[in-house]
Amino acid sequence: MTTTAQPEPQIAPAGLSGVVVAETDIGDVRGTEGFFHYRQYDATELARQVSFEEVWHLMVRGHLPTRDELARWQSLIAENAVLPKELADDLVEVMRRSARDDPLVALRTTVSALGALRGDRPLWDLDAEEKETAAIRTAAVVPWLVSAAYRVRRGEAVRDPRPELGVVGSYLWMLTGEEATQDHQDALSRYLCLTIDHGFNASTFTARVVASTGADLSACVVAGIGALSGPLHGGAPSRALDALDEIGTVENAAPWARAQLAAGQRVMGFGHAVYRGLDPRSELLRETAVGLGGATAELAVQVEKEVVRVLDEAKPDRPLRANVEYYAGVVMQSCGVPREMFTPTFAVSRVIGWTAHILEQSRGRKIYRPSSAYAGPVAPQQVPEIDAR
Amino acid sequence: MTTTAQPEPQIAPAGLSGVVVAETDIGDVRGTEGFFHYRQYDATELARQVSFEEVWHLMVRGHLPTRDELARWQSLIAENAVLPKELADDLVEVMRRSARDDPLVALRTTVSALGALRGDRPLWDLDAEEKETAAIRTAAVVPWLVSAAYRVRRGEAVRDPRPELGVVGSYLWMLTGEEATQDHQDALSRYLCLTIDHGFNASTFTARVVASTGADLSACVVAGIGALSGPLHGGAPSRALDALDEIGTVENAAPWARAQLAAGQRVMGFGHAVYRGLDPRSELLRETAVGLGGATAELAVQVEKEVVRVLDEAKPDRPLRANVEYYAGVVMQSCGVPREMFTPTFAVSRVIGWTAHILEQSRGRKIYRPSSAYAGPVAPQQVPEIDAR
Repeated sequence: MTTTAQPEPQIAPAGLSGVVVAETDIGDVRGTEGFFHYRQYDATELARQVSFEEVWHLMVRGHLPTRDELARWQSLIAENAVLPKELADDLVEVMRRSARDDPLVALRTTVSALGALRGDRPLWDLDAEEKETAAIRTAAVVPWLVSAAYRVRRGEAVRDPRPELGVVGSYLWMLTGEEATQDHQDALSRYLCLTIDHGFNASTFTARVVASTGADLSACVVAGIGALSGPLHGGAPSRALDALDEIGTVENAAPWARAQLAAGQRVMGFGHAVYRGLDPRSELLRETAVGLGGATAELAVQVEKEVVRVLDEAKPDRPLRANVEYYAGVVMQSCGVPREMFTPTFAVSRVIGWTAHILEQSRGRKIYRPSSAYAGPVAPQQVPEIDAR
Repeated sequence: MTTTAQPEPQIAPAGLSGVVVAETDIGDVRGTEGFFHYRQYDATELARQVSFEEVWHLMVRGHLPTRDELARWQSLIAENAVLPKELADDLVEVMRRSARDDPLVALRTTVSALGALRGDRPLWDLDAEEKETAAIRTAAVVPWLVSAAYRVRRGEAVRDPRPELGVVGSYLWMLTGEEATQDHQDALSRYLCLTIDHGFNASTFTARVVASTGADLSACVVAGIGALSGPLHGGAPSRALDALDEIGTVENAAPWARAQLAAGQRVMGFGHAVYRGLDPRSELLRETAVGLGGATAELAVQVEKEVVRVLDEAKPDRPLRANVEYYAGVVMQSCGVPREMFTPTFAVSRVIGWTAHILEQSRGRKIYRPSSAYAGPVAPQQVPEIDAR
């Protein structure tokens, strides 16, 4: 049988580790250097120097805003941070009906529902401006959705955003019901800026695969939220803090780490798939946590040293260092974010990265459609009659 | 700077075309042979010879059921095809509130909501039996969700399943409100059996990527539905039939195809990413459509010949043949499935393939985390002050 030429199948490493699946202008993670960047800027420098809204503009529009652009951008976010009353009531009712337990699942369901309520159209039917509008309006409402899910679950009244506080201050206001101090707003802003994007992690890759089908933007974001909810991906910030609670005192740190290793367990909050040494996010978040002060931050720093010492002894060939999750929990707790809201708060920033990737992916028209290697019994075999099985 | 050894990055073809991303026991598509199989059996032979429930058992449990196993399997499906009244009422209310427009989006939202209502737990926290239970109960309720979404949208009463009619007969009953003839049940069963699985298409791959994070099964299925909704993936069955309507008579077929090509448009219903010649699904569905009779089937066969003739003249190096979507629409229309329900009906079968893949993926513990190549401006550059931008 003659066929058209097909490329020789390549066997990819498990999890596509190290396989370059796309070109991107959005940023990169240089694992061996302990460095990551958004567009052409060091992400940790952005987190230190500019606002969350400016980084958001950079991700979606490709450049840092001028003063005028920033003012227009803030207005655009503010307009989209709140939903018309009828829509909001519908979504609160969806939350009441369906998502009593997990705010991240509530986010998944309500982003999906909101897509329908707004009549989201396939990305392929949209021009560049319409796509960008879809991206902004979807990401801008996530702080409200997340805080509403939290409050509905607790039987509390849902709060409207307060745009004059900025995205970060408004989010803390909706979530906690109190105006956050400037220190807390700045600290959470750093965390959110640092977690907007981070290469082709599982949720970003998922969002891009869905975008490659031409589906609507909500479909891509909903898929990303699903991936983020996985314990191997977004589920760890609270577990790292839980571990810190379990350790309790610096004296317990080394014995605890040794016991984890002896039991063949992962040491939560340490090690990363891409970073082979320092995680630049944890470096800045440590500084931020220490700056805010408090007993937990102090304990975290001491425990980190002890755990790293144990890990270095046990695995001298593979340096395991505190990852983003270790200090993220400490910072979020200091800022008043309840523990169950750590991963949903992660979604508040990561959704922006997803939308940037979705926009980029949707400029191409090639669907993700990999191959697999069949490893089961030889096929074809004759279908047996039911009584001959 | 010394670092641990890292593999040299591989640049993958666009869309991971031809890249083997996993081993699987579930089945394979041999594109150049025009052949695909589920486990060790020719999928078209399964569609001809055994029931939808038997193929479902084969996909999830790995073997065709004995008579006793089939009886227990049918009971299990029947138990899970209907929801407790309070749950069902909640979901119907979610549909009313959120998904007036698109039944596939309603399916996305309600599968997500149902996961929360049932307290879905991460796959990583489940043993093999619990995972299988999650897979069966999720797939078993999809026919009800899809038909309920359709009826809610039309302001009609939602119907309960009728397990004595089998999955296919019950689905047609819930959807159309009438008992289908045996011929129609058999024809739709063939379509559904043929579309349960088909390699690492975008929705299956999406579901596997999400499963690799350890997320709950609903998160994986919801992501799959999102990918399926993309125009490049599941959106085509009705468009192929729309094109047939537009063509109208056999005399118009060749001029229509030439006009499509001249305008640089894809000819809907023809060509496939993997099959380089005949699509075995369209072969069996043509036979099925012709067996059911009717003017549309007759026209479809004549138009197919004309379009293939034009395509062969225009693209002699790349044989484009009728794909699954071309006759799928004809068969579904003959069976009484409304055109807007073609893709949601596709989801009724494909969800089973997704669940088989999710179960297989969740037996490993390696997260999908590919790399990318940064192609933007050189990084790092200094972050400019706002007035210097």
